Amino acid sequence: MKRVTIKEVAAKADVSYQTVSKVINHKVEVLPETAERIWSAVEELGYRPNYTARSLRSQRSRTIGYTWSPTPHGLTNPILDQFLQSMFLTAEQSGYYLLCFPYHEENERQLQVYAELIDTGRVDGFVLSSVEYNDARVQFLLEREFPFVGFGRSDDEALFPYIDVDGGVGVYQSVVHLYKGGRRQIAALAWPEDSRVGNNRMSGYFNALKDCGLPINTHLIARGAGNYEFGYQACDEFLQLPRSLQPDAIVALNDYMAMGAMAAIQNKGLVPGEEIAVTGFDDNPIVQYLRPSLTTVQQPIWDIGQKVIEMLVYQLEEGKLPDPLCTLIPPRLIVRQSSQPKTDTGKE
Amino acid sequence: MKRVTIKEVAAKADVSYQTVSKVINHKVEVLPETAERIWSAVEELGYRPNYTARSLRSQRSRTIGYTWSPTPHGLTNPILDQFLQSMFLTAEQSGYYLLCFPYHEENERQLQVYAELIDTGRVDGFVLSSVEYNDARVQFLLEREFPFVGFGRSDDEALFPYIDVDGGVGVYQSVVHLYKGGRRQIAALAWPEDSRVGNNRMSGYFNALKDCGLPINTHLIARGAGNYEFGYQACDEFLQLPRSLQPDAIVALNDYMAMGAMAAIQNKGLVPGEEIAVTGFDDNPIVQYLRPSLTTVQQPIWDIGQKVIEMLVYQLEEGKLPDPLCTLIPPRLIVRQSSQPKTDTGKE
Repeated sequence: MKRVTIKEVAAKADVSYQTVSKVINHKVEVLPETAERIWSAVEELGYRPNYTARSLRSQRSRTIGYTWSPTPHGLTNPILDQFLQSMFLTAEQSGYYLLCFPYHEENERQLQVYAELIDTGRVDGFVLSSVEYNDARVQFLLEREFPFVGFGRSDDEALFPYIDVDGGVGVYQSVVHLYKGGRRQIAALAWPEDSRVGNNRMSGYFNALKDCGLPINTHLIARGAGNYEFGYQACDEFLQLPRSLQPDAIVALNDYMAMGAMAAIQNKGLVPGEEIAVTGFDDNPIVQYLRPSLTTVQQPIWDIGQKVIEMLVYQLEEGKLPDPLCTLIPPRLIVRQSSQPKTDTGKE
Repeated sequence: MKRVTIKEVAAKADVSYQTVSKVINHKVEVLPETAERIWSAVEELGYRPNYTARSLRSQRSRTIGYTWSPTPHGLTNPILDQFLQSMFLTAEQSGYYLLCFPYHEENERQLQVYAELIDTGRVDGFVLSSVEYNDARVQFLLEREFPFVGFGRSDDEALFPYIDVDGGVGVYQSVVHLYKGGRRQIAALAWPEDSRVGNNRMSGYFNALKDCGLPINTHLIARGAGNYEFGYQACDEFLQLPRSLQPDAIVALNDYMAMGAMAAIQNKGLVPGEEIAVTGFDDNPIVQYLRPSLTTVQQPIWDIGQKVIEMLVYQLEEGKLPDPLCTLIPPRLIVRQSSQPKTDTGKE
């Protein structure tokens, strides 16, 4: 007998499949009549959530699929190795292996690979990273009702298990740290506004300014490619502003932009961390060796790799969604020379 | 019927299994009587090389196993992402996936994982990286006659398919480049003498000194942990030598040691690339942004990932060893500010 899918339930109840998923997992309250329509459809069609069904299958691959967006040329992914090793080791402890496959920029092509891995029974579940708004993979896996856990969030609408770093908390800490060091004109080097990770981090910037009683100066917010060149150019433009409008601190959403900003400051004959403080994000292991060493935000990446696998293995073994469904982990500010208090002379 | 193994042939012919492997693959000449003993044993026992047998198996996993030594804490592996992505993509083009598993420092434990992957039919072959002298994995896979390709060499004794970067060529280029820039006291920051990769790179140092007509000054060769701290300390000690014995250039076997050396030079009030030139190895993407930017050696890592998979897939599909069995790829010297000619003033 063909299994009833959540889509059929949604069609019969005339709601979205996300709503069905939320209601049957008791994750949201909806209008009583909507709930009744959904439960009636569930009953009439004989729908049974797939997680349970899957866990009862005898033929399991004990394999977890994973791919990730490759680092652009000329950059490194400073957390990749630790994240992978942590996942491999945690998976092994539960008797699972990771199957890795190529990342395809083009959605259609990428989804084909996910479909093939599911259809050939090669994997029992997926880990997704770099989850973005309207992520096609999330929609696809929800529709297929195939187990997965995200490292990173998507829309608020999409309900699925994930773990994420609360980047906003990290940037909030950076801004407050700079404020306590006497900085009052705190600029931001950010990604474009369609970046989910970027917006999460920037929320910390805006919240911190507010809590410190500082105004939002739009001329101190630059958005662009998250690389060294953009950081350099944007900071260089800040330094061409009239003196009173120039920043005395720069919060960059990643280490590369921070390094570019430091170089622009140095090329004006100024010392980063003295006249203008700079902070980054990621704690690329190399930035501790910069001169001045870079204050930055560090993600607890080993814990994340462990947790993401534990959440997925729980689904696969127990046949139900992890509780809590989602976990947010705060990152940690690492203070170094590039963000000294304003009155400090900058000597070691 | 139980398959005859190469070990049984070796026992009967009273030679090592490596010798048997070399002779039946026509890779070496041995004494006529040894060859005859081996071929007689092959015939009497009905031995058939396993590569063919394997390729005829109907139940193939179309999966390649891979693990690697994790980056020590506080460092990054600048080539990992590209190497993996290149392997994933090349494997996909031939219908293979990569199964990744944890690295275990302890040999016994690591070999258990290899054995389990073989015995459960999860993989058809392996890629090995960080191959070292007397590598237990190499011995194990040769004994099991299980297909694999190494990224990196082992002893000259062990005969197996590999691709490797000729690190010696990269260091040779560095030394000659420094010599042409007027440098005459060229120091080396190296790993301990039991490092296979280190010895390969150092061979380029010694050869270049010889070809440039420079003496080997043992006081200018420092060996230790390949990290920033060691590079700093060793360079600092060079700078405490009597003026006439101090180096005017430093060749580091990786970028971290080079960065440490640059910091030690700067802390003496000197400018790296002017008074003392510095070169690294790896081209960690971040070193182009150092001040001064670092001259270093870049490995063609995308090509290596592609080639290592092609060599393995050839074995799996064709049932025979790749020809040539081994490939050495030269790296490329990237000249930047840290290795200017001696008379240059060092301005951009």
